[in-house]
Amino acid sequence: MNKKGSAVIISGPSGSGKGTTVKALLKARGSVRLSVSATTRQPRPGEEHGREYFFLSKEEFENKIKNGEMLEYAQYCDNLYGTPRDYIERCVSGGEDVILEIDVQGGMQVKNKMPDAISIFLIPPDRATIEKRLRGRGTESEEVIAQRLKKADEELEYADKYDYIVICGEIDKCVADILGIIDSKKLESANMIDYVKENF
Amino acid sequence: MNKKGSAVIISGPSGSGKGTTVKALLKARGSVRLSVSATTRQPRPGEEHGREYFFLSKEEFENKIKNGEMLEYAQYCDNLYGTPRDYIERCVSGGEDVILEIDVQGGMQVKNKMPDAISIFLIPPDRATIEKRLRGRGTESEEVIAQRLKKADEELEYADKYDYIVICGEIDKCVADILGIIDSKKLESANMIDYVKENF
Repeated sequence: MNKKGSAVIISGPSGSGKGTTVKALLKARGSVRLSVSATTRQPRPGEEHGREYFFLSKEEFENKIKNGEMLEYAQYCDNLYGTPRDYIERCVSGGEDVILEIDVQGGMQVKNKMPDAISIFLIPPDRATIEKRLRGRGTESEEVIAQRLKKADEELEYADKYDYIVICGEIDKCVADILGIIDSKKLESANMIDYVKENF
Repeated sequence: MNKKGSAVIISGPSGSGKGTTVKALLKARGSVRLSVSATTRQPRPGEEHGREYFFLSKEEFENKIKNGEMLEYAQYCDNLYGTPRDYIERCVSGGEDVILEIDVQGGMQVKNKMPDAISIFLIPPDRATIEKRLRGRGTESEEVIAQRLKKADEELEYADKYDYIVICGEIDKCVADILGIIDSKKLESANMIDYVKENF
Protein backbone atom coordinates (compact mmCIF):
# COMPACT_ATOMS: atom_id res chain seq x y z
CA MET A 1 0.00 0.00 0.00
CA ASN A 2 1.24 3.44 -0.80
CA LYS A 3 1.99 5.21 2.44
CA LYS A 4 2.29 8.62 0.81
CA GLY A 5 -0.37 11.26 1.28
CA SER A 6 -1.51 13.84 -1.26
CA ALA A 7 -1.36 17.58 -1.52
CA VAL A 8 -4.97 18.63 -2.11
CA ILE A 9 -5.58 22.05 -3.62
CA ILE A 10 -9.05 23.36 -2.83
CA SER A 11 -10.24 26.51 -4.56
CA GLY A 12 -13.65 27.96 -5.17
CA PRO A 13 -15.43 31.30 -5.34
CA SER A 14 -16.83 33.24 -2.40
CA GLY A 15 -20.01 31.52 -1.26
CA SER A 16 -18.89 28.12 -2.51
CA GLY A 17 -18.84 26.81 1.04
CA LYS A 18 -15.08 26.26 0.93
CA GLY A 19 -14.37 27.26 4.52
CA THR A 20 -17.13 25.08 5.98
CA THR A 21 -16.11 22.15 3.80
CA VAL A 22 -12.45 22.31 4.80
CA LYS A 23 -13.36 22.42 8.50
CA ALA A 24 -15.67 19.41 8.11
CA LEU A 25 -12.98 17.57 6.15
CA LEU A 26 -10.39 18.02 8.92
CA LYS A 27 -12.91 16.80 11.46
CA ALA A 28 -13.93 13.80 9.36
CA ARG A 29 -10.45 12.33 8.99
CA GLY A 30 -7.47 12.57 11.34
CA SER A 31 -4.88 12.07 8.61
CA VAL A 32 -6.12 15.15 6.74
CA ARG A 33 -4.47 18.37 7.85
CA LEU A 34 -4.53 22.00 6.80
CA SER A 35 -1.40 23.45 5.23
CA VAL A 36 0.52 26.07 7.17
CA SER A 37 1.52 29.08 5.07
CA ALA A 38 4.60 31.20 5.35
CA THR A 39 4.27 34.96 5.82
CA THR A 40 6.41 38.02 6.35
CA ARG A 41 3.82 39.71 8.55
CA GLN A 42 4.49 40.00 12.28
CA PRO A 43 3.06 37.29 14.53
CA ARG A 44 0.08 38.45 16.60
CA PRO A 45 -0.17 37.64 20.30
CA GLY A 46 -0.79 33.93 20.78
CA GLU A 47 0.31 32.96 17.26
CA GLU A 48 3.02 30.33 17.04
CA HIS A 49 5.65 29.73 14.37
CA GLY A 50 4.71 26.57 12.47
CA ARG A 51 1.13 26.52 13.77
CA GLU A 52 -0.71 29.59 12.42
CA TYR A 53 2.11 30.50 10.03
CA PHE A 54 5.78 30.07 9.40
CA PHE A 55 6.93 33.60 10.24
CA LEU A 56 9.79 34.58 7.97
CA SER A 57 11.77 37.76 7.43
CA LYS A 58 11.35 39.40 4.06
CA GLU A 59 14.85 38.28 3.14
CA GLU A 60 14.22 34.66 4.12
CA PHE A 61 10.97 34.66 2.14
CA GLU A 62 12.57 36.19 -0.94
CA ASN A 63 15.41 33.69 -0.79
CA LYS A 64 12.88 30.86 -0.74
CA ILE A 65 11.19 32.29 -3.81
CA LYS A 66 14.55 32.56 -5.60
CA ASN A 67 15.43 28.96 -4.73
CA GLY A 68 12.10 27.60 -5.96
CA GLU A 69 11.10 26.68 -2.43
CA MET A 70 7.69 28.36 -2.59
CA LEU A 71 4.93 26.44 -4.38
CA GLU A 72 2.99 29.68 -4.69
CA TYR A 73 3.05 33.13 -3.15
CA ALA A 74 1.26 36.43 -3.29
CA GLN A 75 1.48 39.85 -1.71
CA TYR A 76 -1.29 41.40 0.40
CA CYS A 77 -0.92 44.78 2.15
CA ASP A 78 2.87 44.84 1.91
CA ASN A 79 3.22 41.32 3.31
CA LEU A 80 4.16 38.16 1.44
CA TYR A 81 2.20 34.95 1.93
CA GLY A 82 3.07 31.59 0.40
CA THR A 83 3.19 27.82 0.59
CA PRO A 84 6.60 26.34 1.44
CA ARG A 85 7.39 23.30 -0.69
CA ASP A 86 9.48 21.49 1.94
CA TYR A 87 6.64 21.63 4.47
CA ILE A 88 4.12 20.16 2.01
CA GLU A 89 6.53 17.46 0.91
CA ARG A 90 7.21 16.50 4.52
CA CYS A 91 3.46 16.12 5.22
CA VAL A 92 2.91 14.05 2.08
CA SER A 93 5.91 11.78 2.73
CA GLY A 94 4.62 11.26 6.26
CA GLY A 95 1.34 9.89 4.88
CA GLU A 96 -0.73 12.98 5.57
CA ASP A 97 -3.17 14.47 3.10
CA VAL A 98 -2.56 18.17 3.30
CA ILE A 99 -5.21 20.67 2.23
CA LEU A 100 -4.15 23.89 0.52
CA GLU A 101 -7.14 26.23 0.62
CA ILE A 102 -6.08 28.83 -1.91
CA ASP A 103 -7.36 31.12 -4.63
CA VAL A 104 -7.28 30.16 -8.30
CA GLN A 105 -4.01 31.98 -9.00
CA GLY A 106 -2.27 30.11 -6.16
CA GLY A 107 -3.97 26.86 -7.10
CA MET A 108 -2.66 27.05 -10.67
CA GLN A 109 0.88 27.82 -9.43
CA VAL A 110 0.91 24.82 -7.10
CA LYS A 111 -0.50 22.41 -9.69
CA ASN A 112 2.17 23.60 -12.09
CA LYS A 113 5.02 22.95 -9.67
CA MET A 114 3.53 19.80 -8.16
CA PRO A 115 1.62 18.00 -10.92
CA ASP A 116 0.84 15.11 -8.60
CA ALA A 117 -1.24 17.34 -6.34
CA ILE A 118 -5.00 16.79 -6.51
CA SER A 119 -6.76 19.98 -7.53
CA ILE A 120 -10.43 20.40 -6.60
CA PHE A 121 -12.67 23.29 -7.55
CA LEU A 122 -15.62 23.70 -5.20
CA ILE A 123 -18.85 25.16 -6.53
CA PRO A 124 -22.16 25.84 -4.84
CA PRO A 125 -25.18 24.10 -6.45
CA ASP A 126 -25.91 27.20 -8.57
CA ARG A 127 -25.23 30.91 -8.93
CA ALA A 128 -28.26 31.93 -6.86
CA THR A 129 -26.74 30.07 -3.89
CA ILE A 130 -23.58 32.20 -4.03
CA GLU A 131 -25.71 35.33 -3.73
CA LYS A 132 -27.85 33.80 -0.98
CA ARG A 133 -24.78 32.75 1.01
CA LEU A 134 -23.13 36.14 0.64
CA ARG A 135 -26.31 37.92 1.77
CA GLY A 136 -26.82 35.37 4.55
CA ARG A 137 -23.62 36.53 6.22
CA GLY A 138 -25.39 39.81 6.81
CA THR A 139 -22.07 41.62 6.97
CA GLU A 140 -21.58 42.66 3.37
CA SER A 141 -22.88 45.83 1.73
CA GLU A 142 -24.63 45.64 -1.65
CA GLU A 143 -21.50 47.01 -3.25
CA VAL A 144 -19.30 44.32 -1.72
CA ILE A 145 -21.80 41.63 -2.70
CA ALA A 146 -21.74 42.88 -6.29
CA GLN A 147 -17.91 42.82 -6.28
CA ARG A 148 -17.83 39.31 -4.83
CA LEU A 149 -20.29 38.04 -7.43
CA LYS A 150 -18.18 39.53 -10.20
CA LYS A 151 -15.06 37.92 -8.72
CA ALA A 152 -16.94 34.58 -8.40
CA ASP A 153 -17.81 34.74 -12.10
CA GLU A 154 -14.15 35.36 -12.95
CA GLU A 155 -12.98 32.48 -10.76
CA LEU A 156 -15.55 30.10 -12.21
CA GLU A 157 -13.72 30.50 -15.52
CA TYR A 158 -10.90 28.44 -13.98
CA ALA A 159 -13.10 25.50 -12.98
CA ASP A 160 -12.11 23.32 -15.92
CA LYS A 161 -8.40 23.77 -15.19
CA TYR A 162 -8.85 21.75 -12.01
CA ASP A 163 -8.75 17.94 -11.85
CA TYR A 164 -12.13 17.76 -10.15
CA ILE A 165 -15.21 19.90 -9.67
CA VAL A 166 -17.21 19.15 -6.54
CA ILE A 167 -20.64 20.58 -5.75
CA CYS A 168 -20.92 21.92 -2.25
CA GLY A 169 -24.60 21.61 -1.43
CA GLU A 170 -25.13 19.11 1.36
CA ILE A 171 -21.92 19.22 3.41
CA ASP A 172 -21.63 15.51 4.28
CA LYS A 173 -21.99 14.56 0.62
CA CYS A 174 -19.36 17.12 -0.35
CA VAL A 175 -16.89 15.84 2.28
CA ALA A 176 -17.51 12.22 1.21
CA ASP A 177 -16.88 13.19 -2.43
CA ILE A 178 -13.55 14.81 -1.55
CA LEU A 179 -12.45 11.90 0.64
CA GLY A 180 -13.42 9.53 -2.21
CA ILE A 181 -11.18 11.49 -4.57
CA ILE A 182 -8.28 11.43 -2.09
CA ASP A 183 -8.72 7.68 -1.49
CA SER A 184 -8.97 6.85 -5.19
CA LYS A 185 -5.68 8.64 -5.85
CA LYS A 186 -3.96 6.18 -3.52
CA LEU A 187 -5.33 3.31 -5.63
CA GLU A 188 -3.86 4.60 -8.89
CA SER A 189 -1.62 1.88 -10.23
CA ALA A 190 1.49 4.11 -10.07
CA ASN A 191 0.85 4.45 -6.33
CA MET A 192 0.07 0.75 -5.80
CA ILE A 193 2.74 -0.93 -7.89
CA ASP A 194 5.24 -1.04 -5.02
CA TYR A 195 2.69 -3.00 -3.00
CA VAL A 196 2.40 -5.51 -5.85
CA LYS A 197 6.19 -5.82 -6.11
CA GLU A 198 6.54 -6.36 -2.37
CA ASN A 199 3.75 -8.91 -1.97
CA PHE A 200 3.85 -11.02 -5.12
CA MET B 1 -24.10 16.79 -12.99
CA ASN B 2 -22.84 14.38 -15.55
CA LYS B 3 -25.54 11.82 -16.22
CA LYS B 4 -23.21 9.46 -18.06
CA GLY B 5 -22.05 6.22 -16.52
CA SER B 6 -18.69 4.53 -16.95
CA ALA B 7 -17.46 1.34 -18.52
CA VAL B 8 -15.50 -0.37 -15.75
CA ILE B 9 -12.99 -3.03 -16.77
CA ILE B 10 -12.24 -5.45 -13.94
CA SER B 11 -9.43 -7.95 -14.37
CA GLY B 12 -7.39 -9.96 -11.95
CA PRO B 13 -5.77 -13.36 -11.57
CA SER B 14 -7.47 -16.54 -10.41
CA GLY B 15 -7.97 -16.31 -6.66
CA SER B 16 -8.10 -12.51 -6.69
CA GLY B 17 -11.70 -12.60 -5.52
CA LYS B 18 -12.94 -11.06 -8.75
CA GLY B 19 -16.16 -13.04 -9.02
CA THR B 20 -17.21 -12.40 -5.41
CA THR B 21 -16.34 -8.72 -5.73
CA VAL B 22 -18.36 -8.22 -8.89
CA LYS B 23 -21.40 -9.92 -7.33
CA ALA B 24 -21.15 -7.73 -4.22
CA LEU B 25 -20.72 -4.64 -6.39
CA LEU B 26 -23.92 -5.34 -8.33
CA LYS B 27 -25.77 -5.88 -5.07
CA ALA B 28 -24.37 -2.73 -3.49
CA ARG B 29 -25.53 -0.33 -6.18
CA GLY B 30 -28.55 -0.58 -8.46
CA SER B 31 -27.05 1.57 -11.21
CA VAL B 32 -24.11 -0.82 -11.62
CA ARG B 33 -24.77 -3.63 -14.06
CA LEU B 34 -22.81 -6.49 -15.54
CA SER B 35 -21.98 -6.33 -19.23
CA VAL B 36 -23.65 -8.86 -21.53
CA SER B 37 -21.24 -10.47 -23.98
CA ALA B 38 -21.90 -11.61 -27.50
CA THR B 39 -21.21 -15.22 -28.48
CA THR B 40 -21.52 -17.53 -31.45
CA ARG B 41 -22.27 -20.55 -29.29
CA GLN B 42 -25.79 -21.98 -29.24
CA PRO B 43 -28.11 -20.79 -26.47
CA ARG B 44 -28.75 -23.39 -23.77
CA PRO B 45 -32.27 -24.08 -22.51
CA GLY B 46 -33.49 -21.13 -20.46
CA GLU B 47 -30.90 -18.69 -21.81
CA GLU B 48 -32.27 -15.51 -23.33
CA HIS B 49 -30.83 -13.29 -26.07
CA GLY B 50 -29.66 -10.06 -24.42
CA ARG B 51 -29.74 -11.50 -20.89
CA GLU B 52 -27.07 -14.23 -20.64
CA TYR B 53 -25.54 -13.38 -24.02
CA PHE B 54 -26.26 -11.74 -27.32
CA PHE B 55 -26.43 -14.86 -29.49
CA LEU B 56 -25.03 -14.11 -32.92
CA SER B 57 -24.31 -16.19 -35.97
CA LYS B 58 -20.65 -16.55 -36.91
CA GLU B 59 -21.25 -14.24 -39.87
CA GLU B 60 -22.91 -11.56 -37.75
CA PHE B 61 -20.07 -11.75 -35.22
CA GLU B 62 -17.37 -11.52 -37.86
CA ASN B 63 -19.10 -8.56 -39.47
CA LYS B 64 -19.11 -6.78 -36.14
CA ILE B 65 -15.38 -7.41 -35.78
CA LYS B 66 -14.77 -6.05 -39.29
CA ASN B 67 -16.82 -2.94 -38.58
CA GLY B 68 -15.01 -2.22 -35.31
CA GLU B 69 -18.15 -2.98 -33.34
CA MET B 70 -16.43 -5.34 -30.90
CA LEU B 71 -14.47 -3.75 -28.07
CA GLU B 72 -12.67 -7.05 -27.56
CA TYR B 73 -13.16 -10.66 -28.56
CA ALA B 74 -11.56 -14.05 -28.18
CA GLN B 75 -12.14 -17.62 -29.32
CA TYR B 76 -12.75 -20.52 -26.94
CA CYS B 77 -13.51 -24.05 -28.16
CA ASP B 78 -14.51 -22.98 -31.68
CA ASN B 79 -16.85 -20.27 -30.40
CA LEU B 80 -16.32 -16.51 -30.47
CA TYR B 81 -17.02 -14.38 -27.41
CA GLY B 82 -16.81 -10.59 -27.29
CA THR B 83 -18.04 -7.28 -25.96
CA PRO B 84 -20.31 -5.31 -28.34
CA ARG B 85 -19.45 -1.63 -28.37
CA ASP B 86 -23.00 -0.40 -29.06
CA TYR B 87 -24.34 -2.21 -26.01
CA ILE B 88 -21.71 -0.72 -23.69
CA GLU B 89 -22.23 2.75 -25.13
CA ARG B 90 -25.98 2.46 -24.63
CA CYS B 91 -25.52 1.51 -20.97
CA VAL B 92 -23.07 4.35 -20.35
CA SER B 93 -25.24 6.97 -22.11
CA GLY B 94 -28.18 5.77 -20.02
CA GLY B 95 -26.24 6.58 -16.84
CA GLU B 96 -25.36 3.01 -15.94
CA ASP B 97 -21.92 1.92 -14.78
CA VAL B 98 -21.29 -1.28 -16.65
CA ILE B 99 -18.79 -3.85 -15.39
CA LEU B 100 -16.69 -5.79 -17.87
CA GLU B 101 -15.20 -8.73 -16.00
CA ILE B 102 -12.54 -9.82 -18.45
CA ASP B 103 -9.01 -11.22 -18.69
CA VAL B 104 -5.98 -8.99 -19.19
CA GLN B 105 -5.91 -9.45 -22.96
CA GLY B 106 -9.54 -8.36 -23.24
CA GLY B 107 -9.02 -5.60 -20.72
CA MET B 108 -6.17 -4.11 -22.73
CA GLN B 109 -8.20 -4.28 -25.95
CA VAL B 110 -11.15 -2.44 -24.40
CA LYS B 111 -9.01 0.26 -22.77
CA ASN B 112 -7.35 0.83 -26.12
CA LYS B 113 -10.64 1.30 -27.97
CA MET B 114 -12.39 3.14 -25.15
CA PRO B 115 -9.76 5.23 -23.33
CA ASP B 116 -12.42 6.73 -21.10
CA ALA B 117 -13.20 3.34 -19.54
CA ILE B 118 -11.99 2.86 -15.97
CA SER B 119 -9.63 -0.10 -15.74
CA ILE B 120 -9.19 -1.82 -12.38
CA PHE B 121 -6.82 -4.65 -11.59
CA LEU B 122 -7.92 -6.69 -8.59
CA ILE B 123 -5.28 -8.39 -6.47
CA PRO B 124 -5.55 -10.53 -3.36
CA PRO B 125 -3.60 -9.23 -0.34
CA ASP B 126 -0.60 -11.42 -1.25
CA ARG B 127 0.50 -14.40 -3.31
CA ALA B 128 -0.14 -16.89 -0.50
CA THR B 129 -3.82 -15.91 -0.57
CA ILE B 130 -4.12 -16.89 -4.24
CA GLU B 131 -2.88 -20.36 -3.40
CA LYS B 132 -5.12 -20.59 -0.33
CA ARG B 133 -8.17 -19.52 -2.32
CA LEU B 134 -7.43 -21.97 -5.14
CA ARG B 135 -6.98 -24.82 -2.67
CA GLY B 136 -10.04 -23.69 -0.69
CA ARG B 137 -12.26 -24.45 -3.66
CA GLY B 138 -11.34 -28.08 -3.15
CA THR B 139 -12.06 -28.83 -6.79
CA GLU B 140 -8.68 -28.31 -8.39
CA SER B 141 -5.91 -30.90 -8.71
CA GLU B 142 -2.32 -29.98 -7.76
CA GLU B 143 -1.49 -29.74 -11.43
CA VAL B 144 -4.33 -27.32 -12.11
CA ILE B 145 -3.35 -25.26 -9.05
CA ALA B 146 0.23 -25.04 -10.32
CA GLN B 147 -1.03 -23.92 -13.76
CA ARG B 148 -3.34 -21.31 -12.24
CA LEU B 149 -0.51 -19.92 -10.09
CA LYS B 150 1.74 -19.65 -13.12
CA LYS B 151 -1.04 -17.89 -15.04
CA ALA B 152 -1.61 -15.57 -12.05
CA ASP B 153 2.06 -14.59 -12.09
CA GLU B 154 1.85 -13.82 -15.80
CA GLU B 155 -1.31 -11.75 -15.34
CA LEU B 156 0.19 -9.80 -12.45
CA GLU B 157 2.71 -8.42 -14.95
CA TYR B 158 -0.15 -6.39 -16.42
CA ALA B 159 -1.16 -4.76 -13.14
CA ASP B 160 0.61 -1.47 -13.86
CA LYS B 161 -1.13 -1.12 -17.24
CA TYR B 162 -4.42 -0.61 -15.41
CA ASP B 163 -5.63 2.74 -14.10
CA TYR B 164 -6.15 1.37 -10.61
CA ILE B 165 -5.02 -1.57 -8.49
CA VAL B 166 -7.43 -2.59 -5.75
CA ILE B 167 -6.66 -5.09 -3.00
CA CYS B 168 -9.38 -7.62 -2.51
CA GLY B 169 -9.03 -8.67 1.11
CA GLU B 170 -12.08 -7.62 3.07
CA ILE B 171 -14.94 -7.58 0.55
CA ASP B 172 -16.84 -4.51 1.82
CA LYS B 173 -13.66 -2.43 1.73
CA CYS B 174 -12.91 -3.62 -1.79
CA VAL B 175 -16.44 -2.77 -3.00
CA ALA B 176 -16.25 0.66 -1.35
CA ASP B 177 -12.88 1.29 -3.03
CA ILE B 178 -14.31 0.45 -6.45
CA LEU B 179 -17.45 2.54 -5.93
CA GLY B 180 -15.19 5.42 -4.79
CA ILE B 181 -13.22 5.16 -8.02
CA ILE B 182 -16.42 5.10 -10.10
CA ASP B 183 -17.85 8.10 -8.21
CA SER B 184 -14.63 10.13 -8.47
CA LYS B 185 -14.60 9.68 -12.24
CA LYS B 186 -17.95 11.48 -12.42
CA LEU B 187 -16.37 14.43 -10.57
CA GLU B 188 -13.52 14.88 -13.04
CA SER B 189 -13.77 18.41 -14.37
CA ALA B 190 -14.29 17.21 -17.96
CA ASN B 191 -17.40 15.37 -16.73
CA MET B 192 -18.63 18.26 -14.56
CA ILE B 193 -18.05 21.24 -16.82
CA ASP B 194 -21.48 20.96 -18.44
CA TYR B 195 -23.04 21.27 -15.01
CA VAL B 196 -21.04 24.47 -14.42
CA LYS B 197 -22.10 25.86 -17.79
CA GLU B 198 -25.75 25.08 -17.13
CA ASN B 199 -25.94 26.43 -13.59
CA PHE B 200 -23.71 29.50 -13.59
